[in-house]
Amino acid sequence: MELIKAVYQATDPDRDPQVLAENIAREQSLELTRALIADDIAERMLGRVLDVVALDNNRWRLVIGYPAELASGQSGQLLHLLYGNVSFYQRIRLTDIELPAALLDRLPGPSAGLPGIRAWTGAVNRALLMTVLKPRGSSPEVLAAQALAFARGGGDLIKDDQNLVEDCIDTFRQRVSACAQAVDRAAQETGRRCLYLPHVTGSGEHMSRQLDIVAGLGLGGVVLCTWIMGLETAATAARSRGLMWLSHPAMAGALTEPEQTGVASRVLLGTLARVAGADISIFPGHGGRIQSGRASDESATCRALTEVLGNIKPALPCTGGGKTLEQAPLTARMQGPDCAVLVGGDLIARGSRITADTRAVIAALNDIASS
Amino acid sequence: MELIKAVYQATDPDRDPQVLAENIAREQSLELTRALIADDIAERMLGRVLDVVALDNNRWRLVIGYPAELASGQSGQLLHLLYGNVSFYQRIRLTDIELPAALLDRLPGPSAGLPGIRAWTGAVNRALLMTVLKPRGSSPEVLAAQALAFARGGGDLIKDDQNLVEDCIDTFRQRVSACAQAVDRAAQETGRRCLYLPHVTGSGEHMSRQLDIVAGLGLGGVVLCTWIMGLETAATAARSRGLMWLSHPAMAGALTEPEQTGVASRVLLGTLARVAGADISIFPGHGGRIQSGRASDESATCRALTEVLGNIKPALPCTGGGKTLEQAPLTARMQGPDCAVLVGGDLIARGSRITADTRAVIAALNDIASS
Repeated sequence: MELIKAVYQATDPDRDPQVLAENIAREQSLELTRALIADDIAERMLGRVLDVVALDNNRWRLVIGYPAELASGQSGQLLHLLYGNVSFYQRIRLTDIELPAALLDRLPGPSAGLPGIRAWTGAVNRALLMTVLKPRGSSPEVLAAQALAFARGGGDLIKDDQNLVEDCIDTFRQRVSACAQAVDRAAQETGRRCLYLPHVTGSGEHMSRQLDIVAGLGLGGVVLCTWIMGLETAATAARSRGLMWLSHPAMAGALTEPEQTGVASRVLLGTLARVAGADISIFPGHGGRIQSGRASDESATCRALTEVLGNIKPALPCTGGGKTLEQAPLTARMQGPDCAVLVGGDLIARGSRITADTRAVIAALNDIASS
Repeated sequence: MELIKAVYQATDPDRDPQVLAENIAREQSLELTRALIADDIAERMLGRVLDVVALDNNRWRLVIGYPAELASGQSGQLLHLLYGNVSFYQRIRLTDIELPAALLDRLPGPSAGLPGIRAWTGAVNRALLMTVLKPRGSSPEVLAAQALAFARGGGDLIKDDQNLVEDCIDTFRQRVSACAQAVDRAAQETGRRCLYLPHVTGSGEHMSRQLDIVAGLGLGGVVLCTWIMGLETAATAARSRGLMWLSHPAMAGALTEPEQTGVASRVLLGTLARVAGADISIFPGHGGRIQSGRASDESATCRALTEVLGNIKPALPCTGGGKTLEQAPLTARMQGPDCAVLVGGDLIARGSRITADTRAVIAALNDIASS
């Protein structure tokens, strides 16, 4: 039987670690005491303990195997299986996963992914630069001017700030159209396409109309707040219009940041976002305003998004969280060419120098790639 | 200006608490340094610090006001505003919120809520009893027999286990139809309607077809895993078919359980689930297999779901997490009549005594209400 392997870290376990592992295996799969489960069902569907190892005085590594069938080929259900009820256990953190071929073959993965983004932008072999349009409340003209200045400098990707939200669909259309035109205009000047990703929010008909507008403008993708909207909901929304999906990590810090609970960044914002179909996954990296306490997270999340994983395309890791423009080349040196660096406020603060400064950083990223 | 008030608890703050509060106010609203925000936009939209108080040696209470406009009348955006990026800050927990009338008037709240559930079930003045159909892998006949036995005993609510998931829509239809028929049959015998709530998963067309089947069978509502599917997505899905929505808390423990991070249960599974439109919100209560370390959470979450809140209907709090049948009357005594108690495995374990034992507990709940 093909198993989904989940590695949990238990800190100061409240019961014998072997018993705890068996409790988790049952909780997450069939949620019933063994005596009440028919043998054939238990054999086919019950989670099983694969390994229990002491890591140090107070931490244990619990490896549990879940029959692949339990995920039902749905990325939402996979997330649920890995960390649904156990999120209410005390001091249990999901630190690693291994997905079998039988499941990987059923999960969508990115539709465009890293190769698609390289093809769109023409940035074929180097790290990419992304900026953000903000603040909310600005006129479409102000935001379009930001987009134009960055795209003229050869910037690769522009995302709407995740705070840009319109109550009214016409306001959304006006703003997004203005920014799309700015990026188009820059493309005619530079001969390169900058990928502009508007922020789509809400649900139902309201979300649907925004997606129609984005697709109708010929734009390549959208920003979706995955952990607000739902992992699988976001994937399905973008795919329904053939749009690329930039996964924004808002709320996900509740899972990635605690030491003893939650889900490691490389699993949540790496592998799970990727198998669900995120083309780009943003996460806070080193050195910015927001940063994880864990030094290894940036590299590990980059790797999870790009390493070989069945037939699933690589996604583009985007490291952000308030980085400065100077940090872009540093990040590219550290993470290699298969990443994007997000610079927001620091670029906006440059005012009339946005285009020139963007051009200089893109040149630096090119140099790093060819050196 | 009407403000959304958010109370955060900062533990061992990594900077001066007043500065930290200002950083959060800016991060969550416009995410840009003040100098780069035009005055009129700042005045209208920037979050503001209302209070900063030391709680003890290492904990501070930060009260921040966000202009109500920032939530855009969307429950997803409200969640984002309250805890999106700040989830990546270190040791910040959202412990309380206060929503202004201007926002409450735009949020849906439950469509049926507690009054609707009392009307459906005929349990007009007492605590309610809920059970779960499981395990996954069981035949429709086995699950229908569980439903029949419980409904015959006068049980009020039946939910599908959140592990019951079908890859195939026909399998879903067969299972749900069988259980719906069982509940119907019991209603003809008892003269009372038990509310059966099937579990609907996934996204897009797959989810939509499940909702159609549930509505087509004349059932009253569905179980949705809110924190997998997305808060607002779940609300919109249920409402699109006029179905009641039982909000299951899977994954939410990552927010509610840590002491120093996340969001308090009464806020997340209480107020936020309610204003988004949950008719029933399940959360782990006292004394079961899964339980929060915080003794006051059960009462506080019950209160948040039922207390006066603008024109928003009360929702039904459902306390679960592996309770036994004996704990149902105890819970009703502690929480009063406006709650449901979820008993799963302990009831299934009773086999041929399910109907009689259910009947006895319903009688006990009636006695408590009239005493």
